[in-house]
Amino acid sequence: MSLPQPVTRRDTVLDPWIDTYAERTHGLTVSAVRALFSVANRPEVVSLAGGMPNIADLPREAIGEAIAALIRDRGAQAMQYGSGQGEPFMREHITEVMAEEAIAAHPDDVVVSCGSQQALDLVTRTFCDPGDVILAEAPSYVGALGTFRAYQVQIVQVAMDERGIVPQALREAVAACRAVGKRVKFLYTIPNFQNPTGVTQSLERRRELIAVAHELDLLIVEDNPYGLLTIEGEPLPALRSMDDERVIYLGSFSKTFAPGFRVGWALAPHAVREKLTLAQESATLAPPVFSQFAISTYLHQFDWRAQIVAYRDMYRGRRDAMLRGLTENMPPGCTWTHPTGGFFVWLTMPEGLDSQSMLPRAVSARVAYVPGTAFYADGLGSRNMRLSFCFPSEERIVEGTRRLGEVIHDELDMLRTFGIDAGTVEAVHRDLTTGPAPDIT
Amino acid sequence: MSLPQPVTRRDTVLDPWIDTYAERTHGLTVSAVRALFSVANRPEVVSLAGGMPNIADLPREAIGEAIAALIRDRGAQAMQYGSGQGEPFMREHITEVMAEEAIAAHPDDVVVSCGSQQALDLVTRTFCDPGDVILAEAPSYVGALGTFRAYQVQIVQVAMDERGIVPQALREAVAACRAVGKRVKFLYTIPNFQNPTGVTQSLERRRELIAVAHELDLLIVEDNPYGLLTIEGEPLPALRSMDDERVIYLGSFSKTFAPGFRVGWALAPHAVREKLTLAQESATLAPPVFSQFAISTYLHQFDWRAQIVAYRDMYRGRRDAMLRGLTENMPPGCTWTHPTGGFFVWLTMPEGLDSQSMLPRAVSARVAYVPGTAFYADGLGSRNMRLSFCFPSEERIVEGTRRLGEVIHDELDMLRTFGIDAGTVEAVHRDLTTGPAPDIT
Repeated sequence: MSLPQPVTRRDTVLDPWIDTYAERTHGLTVSAVRALFSVANRPEVVSLAGGMPNIADLPREAIGEAIAALIRDRGAQAMQYGSGQGEPFMREHITEVMAEEAIAAHPDDVVVSCGSQQALDLVTRTFCDPGDVILAEAPSYVGALGTFRAYQVQIVQVAMDERGIVPQALREAVAACRAVGKRVKFLYTIPNFQNPTGVTQSLERRRELIAVAHELDLLIVEDNPYGLLTIEGEPLPALRSMDDERVIYLGSFSKTFAPGFRVGWALAPHAVREKLTLAQESATLAPPVFSQFAISTYLHQFDWRAQIVAYRDMYRGRRDAMLRGLTENMPPGCTWTHPTGGFFVWLTMPEGLDSQSMLPRAVSARVAYVPGTAFYADGLGSRNMRLSFCFPSEERIVEGTRRLGEVIHDELDMLRTFGIDAGTVEAVHRDLTTGPAPDIT
Repeated sequence: MSLPQPVTRRDTVLDPWIDTYAERTHGLTVSAVRALFSVANRPEVVSLAGGMPNIADLPREAIGEAIAALIRDRGAQAMQYGSGQGEPFMREHITEVMAEEAIAAHPDDVVVSCGSQQALDLVTRTFCDPGDVILAEAPSYVGALGTFRAYQVQIVQVAMDERGIVPQALREAVAACRAVGKRVKFLYTIPNFQNPTGVTQSLERRRELIAVAHELDLLIVEDNPYGLLTIEGEPLPALRSMDDERVIYLGSFSKTFAPGFRVGWALAPHAVREKLTLAQESATLAPPVFSQFAISTYLHQFDWRAQIVAYRDMYRGRRDAMLRGLTENMPPGCTWTHPTGGFFVWLTMPEGLDSQSMLPRAVSARVAYVPGTAFYADGLGSRNMRLSFCFPSEERIVEGTRRLGEVIHDELDMLRTFGIDAGTVEAVHRDLTTGPAPDIT
């Protein structure tokens, strides 16, 4: 066989496949959150950045024994291929969990996913062509924005106030999109203890949103990972409990049990559920099967409701520590939200400060957060940051707010002295992606 | 608030969201394989249809104890969020497994996925825009065709012979596509014990394929789930072991350990690996974390190489049973492949018979298979069927071939008597999707 001279891609460009990637990859970049992980995970840094739940108090010995028995007695099923829609017993259990939030659902309408992130991926895949519009709160969950971008969707963020997304702003956003011929595929919303703001939609606001969705013929995707983690006041009914035709509900075991099993779900109107199942089969054949057996074993043999109460008490203590720490340590001019559940507080700094350019100095001072810009599709949020109270201990949280307070203090001093944001002083800049400066020890 | 009359989608059409789905959903339909599962799983049916591995002989008691210890001692990590690329220790273990096939790889270039199906999804997502071409063997794995369709890719299938894909046919297919301006993104190939044909590429053929890929500047996606399950002759080197720049390798623990953990992987050139990791983060945040700890525990504490030898011996017995059964029971005019590993035999029936229309009668005779048409994008394969020898016992396999032989015999009788394929006789037709006829007991 005589061959022509082979093309040696390696010699010509750094990435030989650069001209062959799909268009959808062009918008995908390393997220601010991911770049943070490499530095913020060091033990000396108080990370108020990550959203990892604290699962240290799970009864591991007993869970281990229960799962050993599962493998011994039913391992041939638990370790085998499973259903693309998810195992029937798992979907049954999921309806019991959702009943805690007044949702009446049939197991047939549940599609199990590899974490609720994948449920969001499947929903976006099912509904969105490139150029379609998804509406989301301003700000909104960074991981959702990433998924929407991966499907080349245009993200339109809608103003929220302390009771959640503003109905009139929603109307205006939809009208503006439709006026230019854009197809609005759905509203993505996190009604409870929103990520990143910690804001919860009031009951009245929920009713208004459902009414506006009817008025505008709008599909709602309700993302509710923290719903059962109310730590103050009464839990409010899920949007899905108010409308079973116009709401796709996304749930997760990551915060009420443990994230490592990667089990979430979508509850969808019947016809949509069928599309999601087909999408799941094409994406993974089946969501994690063993994980479903393990979680069902846990739900069946342990008092999971009591565990959720224990989680609530633990997170309440941590939230209180954070609010106390912020009150004691933040300079005048800073404001923050008062979450009644979930994991996050949203901090707003005085005019002139920039949370993104401040971050390297914060990490040098051994405290980390997520800059507000991560949660906007359009570069807003520079005065904001997301502070998590889920993972560090109460003591560490208070210490974190103390360190953060000092950093903001110093920034304000710089601002007053030089009249500019210190972050623009080139010499002080550090490149996060190459790791923290050596003076962090 | 005064609202206009709400639009009631429910009243107007059966699926109220029918006009809002993405274009990519239009090609997604329930696969022949899936429709089969509902009937073929009945215990009275010998299913030669499914591709489920036989994991009955895994040491479940001991695995259960090891995983209980894992949860007790390292549960706080194993049940927590993990890395989007996959846990470092898992990627290290994966390179050890690939070394069995002469692949030298660095753990940095491995991306863990939710089964190798998801690795294929991520690769397709990363490379393919709608209308792009993927080349595949004719026939090829039904699940891969489904994934490609979900990304609105044009599938071009290339002829194969008993040594695998035909290089000259590959050249001609690429030339034909490029002549009309189509972008060929990659060749998808299963070199070992191919699904569905059981054919293995010879060493010389592998070298030719790599040479042609260089000549045509073509990326190869090598799917190798059965690679370690050689049951006759010597294992051949993976394509990836011959070219680390132009081959993306997909692997899986589903057949060498157990599928329920849903852990597969892609090994990709460095720049591609980075894109795949970003795609994984947007799709699932992280592949199943607990599963990775569980599989690593298994690989670390058990003699997994000895388990693979045991699997080979077991599957060899089943393959021999199937070849023996086919020799004894198939009418003249039928031919079949002689797989040297893996799970599948590909049967070709005499001219005039149709495996799809014959299937309801086969299921009535208590034997199931997958019709050949499932493995072609263009309706070919009607005289073929895929027969699996992985799951039923040797005795059941022989009995299955006996039943199948009778069905084909009867079909041939009908064909000789009426001069037409019996499947076209309306009265005999049964609708598979509504389940088998009541006379199956």
